[in-house]
Order: sequence, then C-alpha cells, then structure tokens
Amino acid sequence: MKFDNIKKLHQKKYRTEFGHFLVEGEHLVLELQKAALHNPLLERSELYVTNAYEQWQSPFKTHLISDRQMAQIADTKTPQGIVALVPMPAAGAPVAAPVAGERAIYLHEIQDPGNLGTILRTLAWFGNFRCLLSPGSVDPYNPKVVRSSMGAIFHAPMELDVALDSLRTRFARIACLDMRGEPVQTASFQAFDCYLFGNEARGVPREQLASLKAQPFTIPGCGAIESLNLAATVNMCAYELSR
Amino acid sequence: MKFDNIKKLHQKKYRTEFGHFLVEGEHLVLELQKAALHNPLLERSELYVTNAYEQWQSPFKTHLISDRQMAQIADTKTPQGIVALVPMPAAGAPVAAPVAGERAIYLHEIQDPGNLGTILRTLAWFGNFRCLLSPGSVDPYNPKVVRSSMGAIFHAPMELDVALDSLRTRFARIACLDMRGEPVQTASFQAFDCYLFGNEARGVPREQLASLKAQPFTIPGCGAIESLNLAATVNMCAYELSR
Repeated sequence: MKFDNIKKLHQKKYRTEFGHFLVEGEHLVLELQKAALHNPLLERSELYVTNAYEQWQSPFKTHLISDRQMAQIADTKTPQGIVALVPMPAAGAPVAAPVAGERAIYLHEIQDPGNLGTILRTLAWFGNFRCLLSPGSVDPYNPKVVRSSMGAIFHAPMELDVALDSLRTRFARIACLDMRGEPVQTASFQAFDCYLFGNEARGVPREQLASLKAQPFTIPGCGAIESLNLAATVNMCAYELSR
Repeated sequence: MKFDNIKKLHQKKYRTEFGHFLVEGEHLVLELQKAALHNPLLERSELYVTNAYEQWQSPFKTHLISDRQMAQIADTKTPQGIVALVPMPAAGAPVAAPVAGERAIYLHEIQDPGNLGTILRTLAWFGNFRCLLSPGSVDPYNPKVVRSSMGAIFHAPMELDVALDSLRTRFARIACLDMRGEPVQTASFQAFDCYLFGNEARGVPREQLASLKAQPFTIPGCGAIESLNLAATVNMCAYELSR
C-alpha cells in the first residue's frame, strides 16, 4: 500500500476503503504474529519499523522507515517504532462456523472503544464466545479498541453490522441484560444461545426487544448507584457463563 | 476559593494543596447532591454554573460564571455548564469503621484512571467493599477517575496510600489474584478479609507477597491470550464475592 494511504487508516472510512487496519507496538505485533500462524488472512500483514526494530524477527514483509514517517502512521505520542498493516476481513466474507457450546454476545450500539477492547479481551480469555456488533457500534478496528483488546482482536470471533432483527431467526433462545430480571446467577441464565447488551447510555432497545422475546436478567446490586459500566456487566456475565 | 486556584485543581499537587477536587456535569453533580445528604464533608461543596444551569436546584452555595470561565475550569471540550468544587477528606483523617462482612480490595500501584473508576463503580454497585490504594497509585480524585466512576467515588469507602506491609498486621487472611492459583470459584475464595491485585503491567509484587502469606487465586481462561484487563479481573472477583 502507498505510504500516504497508510496514514489515513486512523479514519474508519479509509480502513473500509483500503481494507486494512493498523496495529502498533511490540506486544500487539507479537500477538498478531502468533495469531497469523493459524490465520491465512493475517499472514498477509506487513511491518513498518524504525531503526530500533531493524533486528525484529517476523514472518511478515518488513519496511524500514524513518522516525518522522513513524510519527505519521503511529497513533501514540511516543511511538515504539513498530507498526503492522493488517488486512481486514471483507464485509460479507464468510465467518467462522460456530463451534459446539459457543455463545453469542450481542452488543447493541456500543460506543466506547475502551469498553469494546476490554470485552473482546475477556471473551478471548474465556473462549467459546462470538461477539456480534450491531450497526452503529464503534468500529472494532479503531486504534483505541485494538490497543485495549491487547491482541484479543485477533482471537475472539466477531461479526459486524448484525441487525437486531436478524437475531430472531438465528437464535432460538435470547437473554438480555437489564435493570430488572432474574439474577444472572440463576441456573437458567446458562440456557441461552445469545446474550444481548444495550448501549452505554440508553440501555437495551425496548421497542425492538419485545419481538425478540428476549428474557431479562440482571446483576443484583445494593442500590447505592444507578448502573454498572457496560464492559463490567458483559465481563461479569461472561465470567458467570464460563464459571 | 479564589477562581484562579480552582483552575489548578486538574493537577494533583494543587488538589492536595487546596484540599478540593472538581466534579463535572449534571449526572455527577446529582450523585454528589444525593451523597451529600449523608455526608457532612460533601455538604460543603460549592457549585459553579453558567446561564444554562441558573435554575438548577441545589443545596450548595452556587456561583454564576461566564462560558469563558467555565471553559477554564471544565475538563471536557464541550462543558455542560455545571461544575462542583468538592472538599477532599484530609490525609490521615479517620476513615469509616469497617461494617460487618465488609471486604477490602487492595490495588497495588494501579495506573489507569478508567480502570480505577470502573472498579469503584462496581464496588459501589455491590456494596460491602472498601477500596485500599497503595502509594504510587493513580489519584482517585483525578478528573478521569471521577468521571468513569459515575458518582461511585462518593459511595465506595476508600483509603489512600496504604502500604503493602501494613496489610499483614491489619488482615488475618489475605488472598491475591495471580496467573496461577486455585480458581476463584472455589468456595475457599470467600474466606478472606483482603484481596490484593497487582499493577496493570507488572502484576503482583512477588518479593513482598511472600511475607504477607497471601494465598494465590486465578480466573481460569482458555489460554488464547496472556492476561485479563485489571478492572475486568477485579470486577469478576467482586461479582464472585457478592454472588
């Protein structure tokens, strides 16, 4: 890819146009290299490094660039000096078939990049989860999501732009997390194929929920404060389901 | 307080010098007003509002300021127009006595403001937790922590600058979260007074742990990635302890 285009990949529209995203820093590049061993798409990643990383061991095609060029493509203020250009799955590309016992976590219009990154990290930690993102969610290839996922973006199966309505025909049993409902530690919480979580500010979309016949569950609290953080809620549910 | 000094409260050294911190936005100010009903220290908070909030109902002394002045004391780029100046507990001030069944969560050198805010929010959600922060931890009165706590900063009992060594004489049974150990869902995980969590990058401080005789526990994962996010780990443990 032309160097001038790589700089543009910090913006979603250019990631979509060029079909690539950026991954920055030693830790994430190591995770990428590990994941590429089992993923032919990631094998086609390329590296951009400064002098500091000239000796870096990598199976990827590697380009040596200047510190000035690195500052242009890096997202951090003081870049380490290593950035990977990673191909994104094409929109509509076939997704991995669900494995036995896999559960879907559906996030409706999640907005905070740090929340999504942390959730992907937790889902990859436990395994056996697939993350479905609604239209209007934060882009998982956003540099802040990639960074806070700490490499989990290469492991947790994801599907983008999944319409809420499509869940009805796809999943027989849908649960949703809400302010009211059965406690998540109830045994019946385990018995669903898909778990739906609402947006950070607006919660679950009430109008559309009814037609999905989603069963509400809640994480019981002491009442001192109004709500839990969205990532905290998803993480605790994933923990309960993996317990 | 002089207006010129209020501007300085974004920096920790001035928060310490002047004994106050700032709380911004409608939601947080509402939480503060609720918490002040049961907390004489918070009752002494003062409000700074622009025209947009002239009609705001508050028990606090209220100052009307210009949009230009608001931009100087607000931490966000597009301030709502309402900021509270809140007195901090003095260093060494007596802390609330532990209530029956209360557990201590000890965070060793936690660095990320978003992590600390989310943890405080989860601890306040469940109740019956006290948050102990080691020296060198992020300041809980940092605007980013206050914001991501969503008001929990007014509810969860906190103690600052608690030395790791002091835990030995204070708590009979200490658990720590580590990469190895018994799974946290084991019944014995419930039987501790204090739960210790290491720093985001370095984990638990090995040298000092031995003398504390802390018992290691872990959140079992599938092995695909190296670690969980610190806030995710604390949140899942708090969930398990409140289950």
